[in-house]
Amino acid sequence: MDPRFALFDAYTPGEQPQDRTYIKLNTNESPYPPSQGVARALDREAVDLLRLYPDPECQALSQALADYYGMDKQSILCGNGSDELLSLAFMAWGEKGAAFADLSYGLYQVLADLHQVKATIVPLRADFTLDDRDYLGLGKLIVIANPNAPTGMAILPRQIAYIAQQNPDSVVLVDEAYVDFGAGSCLPLIKSNENIMVMQTYSKSRSMAGARLGYAIGPAPLIKDLRKLKNAINPYNVNRLTQLAGIAALEDKDYYALQNRAVVMAREETGRALKQMGFEVLPSLANFIFARHLLMGGAALYLALKKRGILVRYFNGQRTKDFIRISIGTKEQMATLTGHLQEILGGQAL
Amino acid sequence: MDPRFALFDAYTPGEQPQDRTYIKLNTNESPYPPSQGVARALDREAVDLLRLYPDPECQALSQALADYYGMDKQSILCGNGSDELLSLAFMAWGEKGAAFADLSYGLYQVLADLHQVKATIVPLRADFTLDDRDYLGLGKLIVIANPNAPTGMAILPRQIAYIAQQNPDSVVLVDEAYVDFGAGSCLPLIKSNENIMVMQTYSKSRSMAGARLGYAIGPAPLIKDLRKLKNAINPYNVNRLTQLAGIAALEDKDYYALQNRAVVMAREETGRALKQMGFEVLPSLANFIFARHLLMGGAALYLALKKRGILVRYFNGQRTKDFIRISIGTKEQMATLTGHLQEILGGQAL
Repeated sequence: MDPRFALFDAYTPGEQPQDRTYIKLNTNESPYPPSQGVARALDREAVDLLRLYPDPECQALSQALADYYGMDKQSILCGNGSDELLSLAFMAWGEKGAAFADLSYGLYQVLADLHQVKATIVPLRADFTLDDRDYLGLGKLIVIANPNAPTGMAILPRQIAYIAQQNPDSVVLVDEAYVDFGAGSCLPLIKSNENIMVMQTYSKSRSMAGARLGYAIGPAPLIKDLRKLKNAINPYNVNRLTQLAGIAALEDKDYYALQNRAVVMAREETGRALKQMGFEVLPSLANFIFARHLLMGGAALYLALKKRGILVRYFNGQRTKDFIRISIGTKEQMATLTGHLQEILGGQAL
Repeated sequence: MDPRFALFDAYTPGEQPQDRTYIKLNTNESPYPPSQGVARALDREAVDLLRLYPDPECQALSQALADYYGMDKQSILCGNGSDELLSLAFMAWGEKGAAFADLSYGLYQVLADLHQVKATIVPLRADFTLDDRDYLGLGKLIVIANPNAPTGMAILPRQIAYIAQQNPDSVVLVDEAYVDFGAGSCLPLIKSNENIMVMQTYSKSRSMAGARLGYAIGPAPLIKDLRKLKNAINPYNVNRLTQLAGIAALEDKDYYALQNRAVVMAREETGRALKQMGFEVLPSLANFIFARHLLMGGAALYLALKKRGILVRYFNGQRTKDFIRISIGTKEQMATLTGHLQEILGGQAL
């Protein structure tokens, strides 16, 4: 293997047990299935037409997304998950380096290493907030997950606009994977800012992590950069069924709005229950919460819950080792979780 | 954009008209739908489970492929089409450059440019054969499409073994996208050769170009290289429905064998008909034929057929400009094609 790649560490995805016996609150998936329209779109005719290549330009899907968000089709590029699009962004705009938070989506560091992009790590403040003043005049690709993972905390679009204005020659990439659970989106900023790129996904708020569909929305010249690289690496990157599912989901807006509201309510309720048990819960606007307890570290909590059939995510690391990240499931699943946590911590307190 | 990528040309995929009014013989798709088992596998439960991420390791599918080919699961990596896997291969093993034919799959040159891999172009002989003696002691990544595209011509696995033995420190990558239409596969060579890597796809002989599924089969250490890069760029690269479809298709072996035999028979019949019209037809073992006629160049033939509702592929280039590449459709589609060609060339001869 090329020695450039011999040393770096690959991303470690969360556990994906294939036996489905766990209450799975570890990878921020939706507890709800995709909408009826998605099921209807994936009919026998769609399966028969799998014999044909998909549209490499995802024209119908891009148009549907453009209509949905009030953008131009030339401002949109679809990807095989937003992970693929993130990789293209690091290739396209990383030549002067990339800046991102010390606690954020783990793939950023992996992509920087992979594409020989010099990473500038900008630590979150002690209270885990991202401070826009730490991002001024950096002159390199800036990647901000908003809301951030694993904290769930968000900053305001106008703070990101300020960062973009203070880095006029750099691309500011806003990873909005979790934006549909209460944070403000930067999409309205795109028309008036030439250097803001937004990425979103169907994996969370549209219940389709298994379909692999993400999209970049940004100024047409930046989208053109990404499209050129996409067409070089993998011209037919989004499969036919995913394109159909993506269009159908946009038509079922009310269904997803309802499910996302249920997730937000369960998040708030779970947050309150955890606080009553003595957890510190970071203020989340995502479909997960990041919480720690004085009596037990993150690893111990993770293991105790796993033993009881509940998977959450634990990140080993100086600033994260006391925490567990809990994806928000159904109301019932969250009640089961809090019940088990009470037992676990009750036993601990004895 | 990074100046490294400013100059290179992206791959141009064949036309994918979305209106479906053409007889589409331009991108080597199967004229037959996927098997019944594939349709059954993509049921309502599968759609509902799209809420969950796919298995990033494609374990069930890799095991099914391993069983099918009598290999070890550690020797297999699945990709979002074999294009994705080709890109990983150029990254992993291109540090000393890559050698491939002047006429072959156009993506190889694009990937070499993209990944800053120095390309050594090895011209096919005057009769379009690939001569193994041109590949001895090159000491770099060697990429051979077998059968080759757009010629359809194949070499013997023992010739590839000879090339591999004469390049002991290089990876010899055999792109077998079209191998199921009559050529010999290099899969039996893998266990006794540490440097042969085979890539195959569901796009042609399993009627699933729209599902995006390719796989690499090779020695476990080489597969490990590709897997590491895959996990860095796009951990969840193959979506859930495609994984299910891939497993189901393997169980319907007889169906695909029947369809592929029909394609081979239509290819032979079309070849004979074209020769009777005065075409020179290269000896194809693929699901397409590459043919030229003294009276009309490739571009003129392409345009005349398109006007009549038939799409074939034309490649502008010194050695290809006289040819058209015709994908093999159903017996009926091929009869329509030859009928139109007779009219077109009959008019020409007046």
